[in-house]
Amino acid sequence: MSRFLSGLYSELEPYTPGEQPKDKKYIKLNTNESPFSPSPKVLEAISHEVINDLNLYPDPEVTHLRTAIAKHFGVDKQNIFVGNGSDDVIAFSVMAFCGRGGSLACPDISYGFYPVYAKLFGVNLTEVPLRGDFTVNVDDYLPFDCPIIIANPNAPTGLMLSVNEVEKLINQNPDRLIIMDEAYMDFGKASAVELTKKYDNLLVIQTFSKSRSLAGLRVGFAVGNEKIINDLETMRFSFNPYNINSLTIKAAAAAIADANYYDTCIDTVINNRERTKTDLEKLGFRVLNSKSNFIFASHPNYSAKSLYEELKNRGILVRYFSKERIKDFIRITVGSKEQMQAVITNIEDILKG
Amino acid sequence: MSRFLSGLYSELEPYTPGEQPKDKKYIKLNTNESPFSPSPKVLEAISHEVINDLNLYPDPEVTHLRTAIAKHFGVDKQNIFVGNGSDDVIAFSVMAFCGRGGSLACPDISYGFYPVYAKLFGVNLTEVPLRGDFTVNVDDYLPFDCPIIIANPNAPTGLMLSVNEVEKLINQNPDRLIIMDEAYMDFGKASAVELTKKYDNLLVIQTFSKSRSLAGLRVGFAVGNEKIINDLETMRFSFNPYNINSLTIKAAAAAIADANYYDTCIDTVINNRERTKTDLEKLGFRVLNSKSNFIFASHPNYSAKSLYEELKNRGILVRYFSKERIKDFIRITVGSKEQMQAVITNIEDILKG
Repeated sequence: MSRFLSGLYSELEPYTPGEQPKDKKYIKLNTNESPFSPSPKVLEAISHEVINDLNLYPDPEVTHLRTAIAKHFGVDKQNIFVGNGSDDVIAFSVMAFCGRGGSLACPDISYGFYPVYAKLFGVNLTEVPLRGDFTVNVDDYLPFDCPIIIANPNAPTGLMLSVNEVEKLINQNPDRLIIMDEAYMDFGKASAVELTKKYDNLLVIQTFSKSRSLAGLRVGFAVGNEKIINDLETMRFSFNPYNINSLTIKAAAAAIADANYYDTCIDTVINNRERTKTDLEKLGFRVLNSKSNFIFASHPNYSAKSLYEELKNRGILVRYFSKERIKDFIRITVGSKEQMQAVITNIEDILKG
Repeated sequence: MSRFLSGLYSELEPYTPGEQPKDKKYIKLNTNESPFSPSPKVLEAISHEVINDLNLYPDPEVTHLRTAIAKHFGVDKQNIFVGNGSDDVIAFSVMAFCGRGGSLACPDISYGFYPVYAKLFGVNLTEVPLRGDFTVNVDDYLPFDCPIIIANPNAPTGLMLSVNEVEKLINQNPDRLIIMDEAYMDFGKASAVELTKKYDNLLVIQTFSKSRSLAGLRVGFAVGNEKIINDLETMRFSFNPYNINSLTIKAAAAAIADANYYDTCIDTVINNRERTKTDLEKLGFRVLNSKSNFIFASHPNYSAKSLYEELKNRGILVRYFSKERIKDFIRITVGSKEQMQAVITNIEDILKG
């Protein structure tokens, strides 16, 4: 660090994104991307006219995209906040609703960015242990009156709370904000978005990076009560009012309107997930009951770290976390049928030694 | 505000972007956009292949674009930080180098976002008065040992410090960080970028939104010593490592490589600026010596607010600031020759009453 960096950040540990090696072409199953291209409507939306108009600023209200997302969920534009990827939305949320000196609670095994945000914004984070079977116990959150953030389905386990359990969490304390990070929810189909119409202490965050095949475009959004969304808008207009570019506005709006295309993609991923789960179980793996587009699996006789390394040597990239409670697992993104077949064949081979 | 927003932000006043009215088609000269479309290379760069690959995350290191910008300035990739618009870069800079409880100094008349960032991040801001003629006096900054941010050319005056004056500011105190916000520098041609090779307490921020006709794409960047850039990277990887999308990386890299195209655009704007300045002076205006792509002008016999309103009624949008010291001025973006002719004709007409 330079002598100019504020001492506030002396213990900051930045997030480590999944590796993006450039040494060779991998079967890339380490960052939970979709194996499918985005909807053909995205290609149409990024027209020559839109590109030639890039000399003009985008609409800072992001009206076109917010309206399209609102329509998809049957809510109003005022209930939608849009960010430059869902990381942006989570960052603004932690900054807004916790802030330096405030508090936040989240599961001990979850999205690795939550503790980074806590350090960045000077927030006191309590990491609440998952149960032994890696499920979230909502009763464990009863003692906390600070905001709570839970990834649902959780990462990297893939396990999911039901809508009823989420509602229980919301009802525990109406003056406490519940942030549900539903990045993977299209593969779990138990979204809490409907509950935002009933409760004003719920913020649901989703993304275009997974089920909508647009990780490269950077769009995330939040659905919630108008007052909470207004708070996030206050933050956005105080940080970067033009955070969504003109191409992204057009492309993402076209994407979310093409539900048919994405429903097919999602169903294919779910089928591939279930098939891969069965195949891995046949090979002796313990596989958690994932409701996401990735699989979290552990083999009783083969070290997860070695398996990750062996697969990498063979040109297949999966993700390994060295954190104590999950160091026996690898996380495999669910890709195409062919990709998953390659995974199974190679693992079979590796296990044979 | 909701009951969930942190009390830290109770006095936050978000930035107000220039209005983007949708009631009719305006000659839009209020947000300092370029009147020209981006380079044709931008159109080529956003290929069908790039769009179809949007299911994959962008390169979080932004290598392709950082390398292209570095090449343009004759520095290394390690000297370049890229943000989602220069607002993003300024936000990260204030957060990193001041931080809650820290301090910052800037001119009293300058880019309206600086005081917003100070409030957002809890930074103590000192606004140093410009001289009576609206110029920056670098000697006024001698007493400050906190980071200093100066827009150069300054907004909304358009007045510019010379490279020698900037170097004097840097030399006043080598342990103080100087942030030069050069959003408009391509129209002034006195950039301090070269000084970043010599001094490690200088950060120069530029943008693709003005001279590069890409306001709609959202790209800003900073040039500086590797250690300062690393600090900004630490912040970015702790906030939003994928802040630049894949289309933007390709398009902006193609743009900055097409210097010939942009040199012509810039020269045209400079010519239009000088012609408009002369025309306005003939109509009795006091016109500051702008080195940017906008003109700051005041008429002795006609209220600036009324002139702004009259022009708006006639379909020409310029910017008016109600702030005490500058309430007698309007700011007119320099557009095409035809647009500037329309401005002059209409003002002439309005002055005749």
